[in-house]
Amino acid sequence: MIVRTAIASGVAALVSGVLLATPAMAQFAKPEDAIKYRQSALTVMSNHMGRLAAMAKGERPFDAATAQYSARVIDTMAKLPWEAFVPGSDKGKTAAKPALFQNLADVKTLSERLNGETGKLVAAAGDLDAMRKQLGATGAACKACHDKYREM
Amino acid sequence: MIVRTAIASGVAALVSGVLLATPAMAQFAKPEDAIKYRQSALTVMSNHMGRLAAMAKGERPFDAATAQYSARVIDTMAKLPWEAFVPGSDKGKTAAKPALFQNLADVKTLSERLNGETGKLVAAAGDLDAMRKQLGATGAACKACHDKYREM
Repeated sequence: MIVRTAIASGVAALVSGVLLATPAMAQFAKPEDAIKYRQSALTVMSNHMGRLAAMAKGERPFDAATAQYSARVIDTMAKLPWEAFVPGSDKGKTAAKPALFQNLADVKTLSERLNGETGKLVAAAGDLDAMRKQLGATGAACKACHDKYREM
Repeated sequence: MIVRTAIASGVAALVSGVLLATPAMAQFAKPEDAIKYRQSALTVMSNHMGRLAAMAKGERPFDAATAQYSARVIDTMAKLPWEAFVPGSDKGKTAAKPALFQNLADVKTLSERLNGETGKLVAAAGDLDAMRKQLGATGAACKACHDKYREM
């Protein structure tokens, strides 16, 4: 638990460091690269959400180590996409609504909510009932942003 | 350093647990999902390799926390793609050569080499010279597999 907390604070500090250190656009040569990057992080996250959902629904046997592994991948992925909503990446192969780019402060708030829930998911994933409950809260945080800013 | 080592062994144990616990195919509903998943992990990894390369080449100022953040993302991503080379995923939108699927034991060996190098990259990323050297070793591990098994 001490190690887990140290990891969580370390990652949070590093993420803040990254956001302060470099303008986001510098990470992507072209807007298409930013789109592909954020979609990639969300694809990996979604896959592992599906693995936990299968365990939560009893479609796959619950295994604590496997669930914790998926939760940690989800928690890492959940920190990545947000810097990639850069100017110019509102066009092209994206399901992001134009409104997203006009409400980046709200997106930041929603992403912080998600990051909070995925952190709790890492802590909860070792126990089936706790994981199931926290997976619901995590999914709700995903949905809160999708409902507002993702084309259906 | 103790925390870092604990994380590294924890992740290694969890990855082994996952590989032992469930057949890989169960993680992907369709071969296309497996292709998309592995490409997504490699896209995120490649982006962060590029961020470190920019620092190594002096195109971007070196910042230890930013470099360590990228190294940790790379190390996490480097563990993901390998379970996704499932039967049927040799066809479709993939740059994987057919030979890859006939040499999965060799791919496993190459992926373990990569995972070793990315683990060292996390440890080295706080110092520019050490990061630069270990980035080279990591890139060489990427290339060893690409040369054999990826369409150019």
